[in-house]
Amino acid sequence: MSKAGTTPASKSQADIEEGTVFAPKFDADGLMPVIVTSAETGEVLMFAYMNEEALARTIETGEAHYWSRSRGGLWRKGEVSGNTQRVVEMRTDCDQDALWLKVELGGAEACCHTGRKSCFYRSLPIGKGAAAGVALTFAESETLFDPEKVYGHASAAKRTLKTQD
Amino acid sequence: MSKAGTTPASKSQADIEEGTVFAPKFDADGLMPVIVTSAETGEVLMFAYMNEEALARTIETGEAHYWSRSRGGLWRKGEVSGNTQRVVEMRTDCDQDALWLKVELGGAEACCHTGRKSCFYRSLPIGKGAAAGVALTFAESETLFDPEKVYGHASAAKRTLKTQD
Repeated sequence: MSKAGTTPASKSQADIEEGTVFAPKFDADGLMPVIVTSAETGEVLMFAYMNEEALARTIETGEAHYWSRSRGGLWRKGEVSGNTQRVVEMRTDCDQDALWLKVELGGAEACCHTGRKSCFYRSLPIGKGAAAGVALTFAESETLFDPEKVYGHASAAKRTLKTQD
Repeated sequence: MSKAGTTPASKSQADIEEGTVFAPKFDADGLMPVIVTSAETGEVLMFAYMNEEALARTIETGEAHYWSRSRGGLWRKGEVSGNTQRVVEMRTDCDQDALWLKVELGGAEACCHTGRKSCFYRSLPIGKGAAAGVALTFAESETLFDPEKVYGHASAAKRTLKTQD
């Protein structure tokens, strides 16, 4: 998929930033970054990517679809785990190259393949001298499902299946 | 910067996902995606990237620093506009390749180069048949500063300077 195929060269910067025509801009790999937050609590749940097809299916169905970079395929969130995402609101940013989804969670109401609600379950300390090696703190440790039971495989395999959900 | 330089090959998936040692994983370009939300309201304000240096400076100073892909340089948010971001909390995700910052805004309390508080000021309709070309709705139209006054240039140049802030 070419970038030119979805963002016509004729679009001016003013049209893209101030206009009302959706002109999604995909990166060189045909993907767009997607921020997913809880419609209920506002917390950030996960970060993923969509290709053109995942975006179209999400808009059509209101069910979140992503592109799995590890598997190289379309991925309807929850197709394996049952932990689906119903899109309540969808926004695009100023230059239309990123998306924000507010979702309602189905199933175990968990997004992360580790069994947690959010993938962002660890905090970093601020004011420390080093970026790598600092100690993380668990901000969220509760698991809402057992990954081994849901995905039927151990940790190493889970890694591969992560983005398949 | 090599990926191996920041995520030692010896790190197991279990260490990365369940451990307390920060081992940030940068992409092939040496960047990590960063989600920025308001510590006050929870809304998503912007989406940006950090390289290793931007990450280290952010952790050290508590002031958000990013990597400007358009300019190819380190960028302290607000260095031109005065619209700084003080980091209240910083989280990493399960596989440590994305970050979530909760920030307090300085200056005009705006993040977007268009003058708006959030870059995500337009909504997409759900349930429509086409991804590109659908009509966007302005969810936020108030501008908190005048980009021409702050950046001292017109729209075309603003584009280039966007990620310099």
